[in-house]
Amino acid sequence: MGTKFVLREDEIPRQWYNIQADMPTPLQPPLHPATKAPVGPDDLAPIFPMNLIEQEMCTDRWIDIPESVLEKLLLWRPAPLYRAHAFERALGTPAKIYYKHEGTSPPGSHKPNTAIAQAYYNREAGIRRLTTETGAGQWGSALAFACSQFGLECKVYMVRISFEQKPFRKMMMAVWGAECIPSPSDQTAAGRKILAESPDTPGSLGIAISEAVEEAVGRDDTCYSLGSVLNHVLLHQTVIGLEAQKQMKLAGDEPDVVIGCVGGGSNFAGLAFPYVRDRIHGREVRIVATEPKACPTLTRAKFSYDYGDTVGMTPLMPMHSLGHGFVPEPIHAGGLRYHGVAPLISQLVNDQLIEPRAYHQLECYEASVLWARSEGFIPAPETAHAIAGVVEEAKRAKEEGRERVILFNWSGHGLMDLVGYDKYLSGQLSDFELPDADLERFAASMTNFPKPQERRRS
Amino acid sequence: MGTKFVLREDEIPRQWYNIQADMPTPLQPPLHPATKAPVGPDDLAPIFPMNLIEQEMCTDRWIDIPESVLEKLLLWRPAPLYRAHAFERALGTPAKIYYKHEGTSPPGSHKPNTAIAQAYYNREAGIRRLTTETGAGQWGSALAFACSQFGLECKVYMVRISFEQKPFRKMMMAVWGAECIPSPSDQTAAGRKILAESPDTPGSLGIAISEAVEEAVGRDDTCYSLGSVLNHVLLHQTVIGLEAQKQMKLAGDEPDVVIGCVGGGSNFAGLAFPYVRDRIHGREVRIVATEPKACPTLTRAKFSYDYGDTVGMTPLMPMHSLGHGFVPEPIHAGGLRYHGVAPLISQLVNDQLIEPRAYHQLECYEASVLWARSEGFIPAPETAHAIAGVVEEAKRAKEEGRERVILFNWSGHGLMDLVGYDKYLSGQLSDFELPDADLERFAASMTNFPKPQERRRS
Repeated sequence: MGTKFVLREDEIPRQWYNIQADMPTPLQPPLHPATKAPVGPDDLAPIFPMNLIEQEMCTDRWIDIPESVLEKLLLWRPAPLYRAHAFERALGTPAKIYYKHEGTSPPGSHKPNTAIAQAYYNREAGIRRLTTETGAGQWGSALAFACSQFGLECKVYMVRISFEQKPFRKMMMAVWGAECIPSPSDQTAAGRKILAESPDTPGSLGIAISEAVEEAVGRDDTCYSLGSVLNHVLLHQTVIGLEAQKQMKLAGDEPDVVIGCVGGGSNFAGLAFPYVRDRIHGREVRIVATEPKACPTLTRAKFSYDYGDTVGMTPLMPMHSLGHGFVPEPIHAGGLRYHGVAPLISQLVNDQLIEPRAYHQLECYEASVLWARSEGFIPAPETAHAIAGVVEEAKRAKEEGRERVILFNWSGHGLMDLVGYDKYLSGQLSDFELPDADLERFAASMTNFPKPQERRRS
Repeated sequence: MGTKFVLREDEIPRQWYNIQADMPTPLQPPLHPATKAPVGPDDLAPIFPMNLIEQEMCTDRWIDIPESVLEKLLLWRPAPLYRAHAFERALGTPAKIYYKHEGTSPPGSHKPNTAIAQAYYNREAGIRRLTTETGAGQWGSALAFACSQFGLECKVYMVRISFEQKPFRKMMMAVWGAECIPSPSDQTAAGRKILAESPDTPGSLGIAISEAVEEAVGRDDTCYSLGSVLNHVLLHQTVIGLEAQKQMKLAGDEPDVVIGCVGGGSNFAGLAFPYVRDRIHGREVRIVATEPKACPTLTRAKFSYDYGDTVGMTPLMPMHSLGHGFVPEPIHAGGLRYHGVAPLISQLVNDQLIEPRAYHQLECYEASVLWARSEGFIPAPETAHAIAGVVEEAKRAKEEGRERVILFNWSGHGLMDLVGYDKYLSGQLSDFELPDADLERFAASMTNFPKPQERRRS
């Protein structure tokens, strides 16, 4: 026994933690894509409701979670925290490994933590419809679920190649009543222009963002919703770490190292930010962000101002970016194939509060299969990158012969991603490391942008 | 709040409940397929370990759950019990609806409750390998998971048509290290014979059982494992109802009606048997078993001795059976497409302790989509049949204008079954009711079998 640490419903956190209140270097502002001047609330009003814009810019340390949001989160929260005894035994490590299980939500990942909050704030602001984009479909399905909970319509532009090759997430969205269409579509000017130029395009996340934003701009009853990167999105995910801190007390341990995988950065931030706060206040805890070697944003890309999308419609954000034109290899961890990373995380990496690490796809699958055969639950390929980081830490603890307490975010299950496992087990996958020349080529797209300051703690 | 009722780890039941101790009419014995004499332990020894054979025949009321089984069950148990407030509102019913959420296990259903126990007892008996058959793959994946937990090899004969059309469950089995092959195969005499006669056969559950049993008979280190129907399988599922009874106390309610869907009967029995016991002891509670109109075993089939498989290798069991040659329509609730039903449940239906009901596929999907859009979690198509029963009870409560407490078993999630939802939402599904003539034709296959007694309580 002593495997699973469960909170009562009345122990769910009632406030989100806003790391902007504690950062040693304040966040630098996003810039208008045309004027390059700092973006103000009114610049964002065509696509976001004002209550979320205020939250995006807020620097208060604690922000109350509305009762209506709490009520929906309680459907699957507080999420359990586990001690991974069997995985420890499989690794033969003296390390103690804990994981926060975010796969228990209806769509199977951490994504609904913010989807529920965003749907709520939009409904409160009188919005009737939300648009968004999705790649593999994890975010689209989370927003579809959240909109069904608040009676909002939901329209998802899904990258065409995924729409055709990965039909199950779009079926999930349909069960929840959302409309999911392949992008580029003939429903927007951006989509029609691209279709006219290249009718057979597989689509891209950048194109899908353009379509979702264009529709939101053009309709008063409609806003746009994003599943990662932005400050308010990361804020909503901090319920993960705040719960984990209570559960680690129940377990009678404190983590020496906290690990999460990073695409845009939302699941990582959700677990890690409350621990980054501890670190800022002097507690010894290492915070490790893991990413794919095929998309090495934090480990190899520059800290620059860059667009959040491919076509340059969004504000310029201060972040580590491989360049908005970067097209990652088709690794199976679709949620980690993003050219940038959240400005909050980028700044904390600059300030040496977060250590980035990169792993190859094959070592991630190897770690994940060992996980499934010991701990039982099958991880998403994104989560596999966190587990690869855990394996490295656990092996080092073994070499050093010392106990070490590891906590990581098990961000979602892999039941919708079994094709990747199938290819791994049948030897069809390979590794890919980005050549320096490619890195420089894409970085060149940012040479004319303003430079953010890289202030570091000494 | 007050939506989710969670037990602590130390509140997990430590004994299974054996309804054989309380049945007003004792179970009639299975008969040897050749001699038609009652089957003894030695007849079953070629395919099951003696500890499970003893459990199959045991009539003790309470049976201790071994510590090693409890430890594994704690990975996802105690499972949460929910009050379905949103579904109640969607139906506009005065009924209170509670559900036991069995979708939180690694494979996503109740099946591992017995898979874990069976893997444990086989390992204790010195068995190294288990064989089984699977149709859509829910049982095969549960046994694959359980074998990986106890270091056993696992070989799954999967009906060929499902193997080809539903590749995801077999990928899940592979992640857990099991070998899954299409049946009929060239690895058994039974398989080779059928392949020689009809090389293009889609296979059937009956053929797959024959192959799995043949392999278990032929190897000393190998036993066979079944996921439903048998007494010990239903016994292992009673943790569901025993937990639910504690959780209903937390909720401050007692059910007026308990509902579960029935294929072989294991998830239904798991929730219902502890409540059947209450009913036998005089408490007023109705127990409702729901099944598909396309496979109306309890509602329309005779109580007869019949084989558990199609080709007649298993003992004759006293049960409601559509006939071992019956081939149900290809409804999406693959787990409910079985010609028979557990002898324990059959006898309790005869004794009027359980009310059977049948539903059409379309009303089940309609109820399930309403469920997903209100309660969030997407139900398996089997579970949908329980929800259809809940809708009927809740509507009756509304008509009668009285409160009614409904408890049902949410036996698993539908994330691996989204194609059925897709077909339903796009209008490609239809209903099917078995004609009387078909019922009689298949029943004729049992005319030469001994007749079990239909003793009823007056």
